[in-house]
Amino acid sequence: MSNEVEILLVDDSPEDVELTILALRRNKLSNEIHIAEDGAEALDFLFCRGPHKDRSFSNPPRLVLLDLKLPKIDGLGVLKAIRADERTKTIPVVILTSSKEQRDLIDGYNLGVSAYIQKPVDFDQFADTIRQIGMFWLLINQPPPAGAFMARKSQGA
Amino acid sequence: MSNEVEILLVDDSPEDVELTILALRRNKLSNEIHIAEDGAEALDFLFCRGPHKDRSFSNPPRLVLLDLKLPKIDGLGVLKAIRADERTKTIPVVILTSSKEQRDLIDGYNLGVSAYIQKPVDFDQFADTIRQIGMFWLLINQPPPAGAFMARKSQGA
Repeated sequence: MSNEVEILLVDDSPEDVELTILALRRNKLSNEIHIAEDGAEALDFLFCRGPHKDRSFSNPPRLVLLDLKLPKIDGLGVLKAIRADERTKTIPVVILTSSKEQRDLIDGYNLGVSAYIQKPVDFDQFADTIRQIGMFWLLINQPPPAGAFMARKSQGA
Repeated sequence: MSNEVEILLVDDSPEDVELTILALRRNKLSNEIHIAEDGAEALDFLFCRGPHKDRSFSNPPRLVLLDLKLPKIDGLGVLKAIRADERTKTIPVVILTSSKEQRDLIDGYNLGVSAYIQKPVDFDQFADTIRQIGMFWLLINQPPPAGAFMARKSQGA
């Protein structure tokens, strides 16, 4: 099933999705990418429900790469839901946005985003940014051991 | 004064400190590094007190690079204090540790660490890890606008 996903990419722009996948593959960084085109779909994936009810919380993505302007539930709403639930709150979430609003930057950090990146307009810079994101979050960072949080939750229940 | 600091490096190992500075400078990533050799010194720096009372909260480091085993206050204690205070809670903190304890990894994420990295033993790998950290957090990531959090705090007071 989809349990091997390394990156959950939440973006409704087909061009940006294509560029992101291209940059990750070209640098051999990830072939296991799940795309969610709106915030509701992203949360269904992360919370293993609806079309993703066969997924398991014990196998979260190593990284959620999150756009802000999204249909149904916006990026900050998705981030808030992730951080509010014991089963998902430690998943690394990086906002990647075209927004230049200072308010979004502040809200993102206040809601506990791991990192916040402005989408470069230039094609090469965009590809290089994706490469840096992939290198850091897929190769260097040690992700939270999801099983541990699950166990704690069921002990507390 | 020391308001231009980009990285607060909290580590009591002179060898690791030297290697870190070397790797950052060699890659032209940061000349503005402040070293704290124990957790208490790190918190004095971040909270602008004691020998750092002339610093300002409006100019936080872009990154705190935090060892775990430290004299006086350990790394998790430092992280907890940073995340508990409105004026410092959004500062990116990356744990860089020799610890192989699953408990430290879990506690780090539970306390809201931005990323968690195990120190590579190999010299070249260590230097490369520092380079990746510097590229991502100093060049790609957009740091929280510290002034905004200050303003919010005084509005609430």
